[in-house]
Amino acid sequence: MRAAVTRPGGLEVTDVAAPTPGSGHVLVRPLACGICGSDLHAAQDLEHFVELTGKVGGPNPMDPARGVVFGHEFCAEIVEHGPDTAGTLPVGTRVCSVPTLLSPSGVEAVGYSNDYPGALGELMVLQEMLLLPVPDHVSTEIAALTEPLAVGEHAVGLAGLTGNEVCLVVGCGPVGLAVVAALKARGHGHVIAADFSPRRRQLAELVGADEVVDPAATSPYGRWSELGVPATVLERGAQEMFGGTFKDAVIFEAVGVPGVLQTIIDGAPPKARIVVVGVCMQTDHIEPFFGVVKELQMRFAFGYTPVEYATTLDRLAQGMPGADALVTDIVDLDGVPGAFATLANPGDHGKILVRPTGTSGEGSTT
Amino acid sequence: MRAAVTRPGGLEVTDVAAPTPGSGHVLVRPLACGICGSDLHAAQDLEHFVELTGKVGGPNPMDPARGVVFGHEFCAEIVEHGPDTAGTLPVGTRVCSVPTLLSPSGVEAVGYSNDYPGALGELMVLQEMLLLPVPDHVSTEIAALTEPLAVGEHAVGLAGLTGNEVCLVVGCGPVGLAVVAALKARGHGHVIAADFSPRRRQLAELVGADEVVDPAATSPYGRWSELGVPATVLERGAQEMFGGTFKDAVIFEAVGVPGVLQTIIDGAPPKARIVVVGVCMQTDHIEPFFGVVKELQMRFAFGYTPVEYATTLDRLAQGMPGADALVTDIVDLDGVPGAFATLANPGDHGKILVRPTGTSGEGSTT
Repeated sequence: MRAAVTRPGGLEVTDVAAPTPGSGHVLVRPLACGICGSDLHAAQDLEHFVELTGKVGGPNPMDPARGVVFGHEFCAEIVEHGPDTAGTLPVGTRVCSVPTLLSPSGVEAVGYSNDYPGALGELMVLQEMLLLPVPDHVSTEIAALTEPLAVGEHAVGLAGLTGNEVCLVVGCGPVGLAVVAALKARGHGHVIAADFSPRRRQLAELVGADEVVDPAATSPYGRWSELGVPATVLERGAQEMFGGTFKDAVIFEAVGVPGVLQTIIDGAPPKARIVVVGVCMQTDHIEPFFGVVKELQMRFAFGYTPVEYATTLDRLAQGMPGADALVTDIVDLDGVPGAFATLANPGDHGKILVRPTGTSGEGSTT
Repeated sequence: MRAAVTRPGGLEVTDVAAPTPGSGHVLVRPLACGICGSDLHAAQDLEHFVELTGKVGGPNPMDPARGVVFGHEFCAEIVEHGPDTAGTLPVGTRVCSVPTLLSPSGVEAVGYSNDYPGALGELMVLQEMLLLPVPDHVSTEIAALTEPLAVGEHAVGLAGLTGNEVCLVVGCGPVGLAVVAALKARGHGHVIAADFSPRRRQLAELVGADEVVDPAATSPYGRWSELGVPATVLERGAQEMFGGTFKDAVIFEAVGVPGVLQTIIDGAPPKARIVVVGVCMQTDHIEPFFGVVKELQMRFAFGYTPVEYATTLDRLAQGMPGADALVTDIVDLDGVPGAFATLANPGDHGKILVRPTGTSGEGSTT
């Protein structure tokens, strides 16, 4: 089959062996797949990526020398049922799935595995018991957004919202937009979204941000008092002591670049909860003193549960505002290396989708 | 009055103006006062300390040029009631207090103020409404431990313990020992305390640590699985998915030196809660990636509430195991500069107490 494969120095679109479904697996044809920030990191320096991920005891590690087919944000259609499957969903059913499966050697991350290619190829295998059928009225492109949007659902779930918070989302790339969407899907009140890119601020508004801020023009951290959040240690202490009505701040770090976390620590009001959902793969510098004196909370968020994934597909099926707008480009398999190059400076992009087996038509399965 | 005052390059014991009690204040004579790690930082570079603390909107700032008398971990006796006081506690009553007062110009931090000296001098003023009388059977030295031990009480309160946690306390200086004591005062189960110093490990045992670890000999992070805490992302995921019985890890950072936080991030099991109670006043380096993939929580803890302070005095009055042992030296006012020098390399010390108005005898008030 054809696939975009990692090679030293970049991605190559070439022929690779098609995967064979094992026990409990189904063979599927990817119809649409998003490119994730983690794919960009991994493509840039796969050995570093493998080294970092190997330290935490996750799925079976990749061998960079053997090449990897990325792609874990997908919608696919069933081609063939492997051994020991129930076959409940017929061939041709469009499905989504959390990108994980059980192989004879353990847990595999689909799209970050030498043996289980991701959706940037013409075929892949998935675990039958993890498949979710895509409702007919949901387009293939929208269904492929389930995975990245589930990341926002998970991060918002970890924020412990009570409804008495002002939420600030720092960074409106796909992760930040997913957070905004998840906040608004829960009916959360005032959500501020900050990004230097006008296009991304516009996307944030489309998915429901109540207010967008261009950090080049206005500090996103300057209005706490005005929004009802005590801005200094002393203000906070007085409000707590005298039982005042005040709000808490929840700040989502959705950039994942060194320096952003300290900017947030500097700008956060006392007792703010910071949910770190951007994945920074470089060493970062912080000033713990300010975290201490302000008694900040930092909660690192990663991935999602199968339930959050299913919830997200359900939210999309019910019509999530602005979801259409999140897809800012669609390319075919040959366009994958170019799309990775484009996303190295994502500028105005939301999500770039790949149609690994076709070039035209919504929900194309050719 | 005589006091230890900050001067460029160090502390000097000299004569300074005695404070005058204002509205709602009482004049007190410090009987015993501990030296805090923050005092050491402030003495080393008061301008840096003022610059950092000034950024967070706390009490009225100090002017380094004017000199400051430190000392906020004290037991004192009432000398005179100022204007607008109730006088409920008679002159001579031994008291403790959170080191804060209201002056005409706002909130003052007693011991970090140009106008309101701390307890490293012969006289100080306190807010009458914040005074707690010290029970007769509690020695002056033990009462002076209320403040540092309240820091542990507060940190443990923020840890959100349910009883299903393994607690690791990294660093057994006064802050770490306070955390161990607060954990055991709540009846918390397995508490591991780690420190390179044999003396400090011994102190940790005296205040109730179930297990002490010398990090030079054994990694404090090597036994999660054995203690019932899933050690890898995959182990954790499997336990959660299949509803296994497992424990969570809570790790207290009680060192406050750059590098320790990343060591903890590296050694923490997935979903560990890290309570940062050491006050690191330098820039620190972290690898956010591991925080993200393990979904760690970091909660910065600072100070205590008046209720936690009172709870701590009550715990001491009920007899906190090992409290006596925490005081590893007692000096007079002339010994303060030497004690600060000693604590620059605290090595084997717990808490060094100062008797600002006497040199001998428990509870001396001469």
